[in-house]
Amino acid sequence: MTGLVIIGGSDAGISAALRAREVDPSSGVTAVIADAFPNYSICGLPFYLSGEVPDWHALAHRSQAEIEEQGITLRLDTRAIGIDPERRTVRVVDRHGTEDDLAYDRLVIGTGAEPIRPPITGINLPGVYALHTMEDSFAVHDAITERSPRRAIIVGGGYIGLEMADALTTRGLGVTLIELLPTVMSTADAEIGEVLRVELERHGVHVTTGATVARIEQEAEGLVVYGEPEVRVAADLVLVVVGVRAVTELARAAGVETGERGAIRVTRTMETNVPDIYAAGDCVETWHRILERPTYLPLGTTAHKQGRVAGENAVGGHCIFQGSLGTQVVKVFDLAVAGTGLRDRTADGFTPLTVETVVPDHKAYYPGAHDLRIRVTGDRITGRLLGAQIVGYWKAEVAKRIDTYATALYNGMRVAEINDLDLSYTPPLGSPWDAVQVAAEAWVRARGAVADTASEPVGRW
Amino acid sequence: MTGLVIIGGSDAGISAALRAREVDPSSGVTAVIADAFPNYSICGLPFYLSGEVPDWHALAHRSQAEIEEQGITLRLDTRAIGIDPERRTVRVVDRHGTEDDLAYDRLVIGTGAEPIRPPITGINLPGVYALHTMEDSFAVHDAITERSPRRAIIVGGGYIGLEMADALTTRGLGVTLIELLPTVMSTADAEIGEVLRVELERHGVHVTTGATVARIEQEAEGLVVYGEPEVRVAADLVLVVVGVRAVTELARAAGVETGERGAIRVTRTMETNVPDIYAAGDCVETWHRILERPTYLPLGTTAHKQGRVAGENAVGGHCIFQGSLGTQVVKVFDLAVAGTGLRDRTADGFTPLTVETVVPDHKAYYPGAHDLRIRVTGDRITGRLLGAQIVGYWKAEVAKRIDTYATALYNGMRVAEINDLDLSYTPPLGSPWDAVQVAAEAWVRARGAVADTASEPVGRW
Repeated sequence: MTGLVIIGGSDAGISAALRAREVDPSSGVTAVIADAFPNYSICGLPFYLSGEVPDWHALAHRSQAEIEEQGITLRLDTRAIGIDPERRTVRVVDRHGTEDDLAYDRLVIGTGAEPIRPPITGINLPGVYALHTMEDSFAVHDAITERSPRRAIIVGGGYIGLEMADALTTRGLGVTLIELLPTVMSTADAEIGEVLRVELERHGVHVTTGATVARIEQEAEGLVVYGEPEVRVAADLVLVVVGVRAVTELARAAGVETGERGAIRVTRTMETNVPDIYAAGDCVETWHRILERPTYLPLGTTAHKQGRVAGENAVGGHCIFQGSLGTQVVKVFDLAVAGTGLRDRTADGFTPLTVETVVPDHKAYYPGAHDLRIRVTGDRITGRLLGAQIVGYWKAEVAKRIDTYATALYNGMRVAEINDLDLSYTPPLGSPWDAVQVAAEAWVRARGAVADTASEPVGRW
Repeated sequence: MTGLVIIGGSDAGISAALRAREVDPSSGVTAVIADAFPNYSICGLPFYLSGEVPDWHALAHRSQAEIEEQGITLRLDTRAIGIDPERRTVRVVDRHGTEDDLAYDRLVIGTGAEPIRPPITGINLPGVYALHTMEDSFAVHDAITERSPRRAIIVGGGYIGLEMADALTTRGLGVTLIELLPTVMSTADAEIGEVLRVELERHGVHVTTGATVARIEQEAEGLVVYGEPEVRVAADLVLVVVGVRAVTELARAAGVETGERGAIRVTRTMETNVPDIYAAGDCVETWHRILERPTYLPLGTTAHKQGRVAGENAVGGHCIFQGSLGTQVVKVFDLAVAGTGLRDRTADGFTPLTVETVVPDHKAYYPGAHDLRIRVTGDRITGRLLGAQIVGYWKAEVAKRIDTYATALYNGMRVAEINDLDLSYTPPLGSPWDAVQVAAEAWVRARGAVADTASEPVGRW
């Protein structure tokens, strides 16, 4: 029997707890959770705020009772304030201020990430919010429902900023989105960012890119955001969502080393440098399957997988995290934008070539066809698939098409081999060569080596 | 320069022609096509007949002009009536009855398949139709639009029968579907067939399974179909769609050998036993990637791939057909049914285990979630993924989810490895563990070896 303590009750922590109990039902598992909301879907917050999910309780992946039924002890509203690796104890404090030591055989740290707070004067003013925890979400929800704001400013055009632009527009607010970089969604190519800009503007969002925000002031007309060049926008509500950073203070104080982007350094078995301390989720660096090195990719999907590996290994398993491809999808109004793997700008160590193809999602003769814009990135030298990006109508199977590329990437396929895949076809839902294959073929042609085809009996790369 | 003659103008023939010209622009390519409809999407016929595709011209993958622009000579309304492998000529006859010999260096046979005509008395009566060629389609279209039939009987519950039940119901006809086997869609498991039966009946289709049709008679009340047990149904229109068989007479007369289900025997380079004669598409046997032996799987997707391989090799290439998984999807009313790979009944040489999981297509808290029924088949001994079937709402990304399994199958993955895939997630379009992973995990649990996980560092099988 292993005594396992887990710090954190979001995706990584609860996944670790559940997996540990599944693999070793004799293990004792206690999760220390800073708030009262174990296993909530943080990714669902924008949809609660948009009104599409009326009851926030629905955002729980599992209820507290469901987790406890698995034999997991939950210490809610309890913060971990210190780890003693020598004595193998975690110092915790509950909401009454009472301190206590929890003994562990193995510890899993899943302290997650917190919003980056950029150096903006006035960022602490009432009416300026971050969006990461359930509490943040309640605060924004109260502001929307009780104070009937008409105008919102979103600082940050990443995927949460984009989802919130959609959500607040859906709520009836006039939205201005301010992004530092030249295009929104900087995790995708600029061409995709421009498609998103058009979609945002089509729905009435004012989009300002290439702009820095310097200060926020409370003036007669509301909160006024000032920035460069020539930014002056007034609103009733400001959201600052410019990314997150790993929460590592507790770990570092216990001698745990950090690495990429300040996240906790872990092995692919999710072990830290300190014996018997594992870590997983948004607080750790993530092995990238194509780059074959650690990166910082805080994503819910990855947190679930890493938590599972940590939980299994913490009770004696021998699991290896198979790595992330950074696969993502986001819905913005009527579009879905998805990506997996590398782009020209991120393909360090490769010789990337990216080719864009516009192709209908299904046979154009069947009603309701929508063009997909697909960007395939491959290595010019070896022909290996490195990544793909798709933007198109959100119901045009964009998300699961990126999954075909993600599965190909996982297996180290060459771009040309995509055309050998036996994919499904019926005119309402595809083409004899699916859109993902048409785009792969366009890449092969652009590479300029017709003879180097998928079916050629050569080694992979 | 290679002189290439292609017999057949459907998917395989035109793919071969286009690929030959692409790989060797100096090659002379002539396609001999029995009708006036090169490169038509046979799979689109049900949607023309349903009225969803108003103009049949739209069914062409490419126009005649687009094909000819690629330097391909089309001999339309011209039938090949003999092949002389010694002299390397093809005897053809045009619509005026004029015969001619075409010389070839290499020949590609793409004569396709034709509907099986079961031994039903009265199958030749007016009002009884097959559905395979454009001409068939025009005949049925004329019957529907000019004679205003009210009742239709469809003999055969395979995918064309199912699509036509949908199409004719959409046209306002009352439809009776008669299937020999205990469930419709016998290429899927019976559990899926039962889901389809409910969907058909929900839309007013009368479904009779386990019934043989013995004769059709023209009586006062219309065409009456008689069968066992106790089948007597009257209608204005009867469609007999019980499958297809390879058209091989021309090839056999030239000494070309046949194999699986009477289809032309080919190598994986799409060569027949006769020198310089290639064959591809619905007239040939198809290498199955998992079974590693020839099967008969006449599908448009496969015909395109085989045609491409044949065309490339016929002008000097060295392409290998990578095999079929039998991946299919069909839309029936509001459902899509998709499958790839093997099932318990088809997994010869394996020790199959099939596990069914019902799981929502995306986070249930986001509106519009639909349950998917996913059946995963894997090998009990090795853990290897053998196949998958999905049925669910047709817009719930059923088709592209089967493609994830198909891509995993192509790469020989184990079921447990599916959980290591980095798939996309956003609450409106998925879950942190996608439905395909939840189903894979259920299989792993059912196999009863929790320790044998995806992440375990073991060989593949």
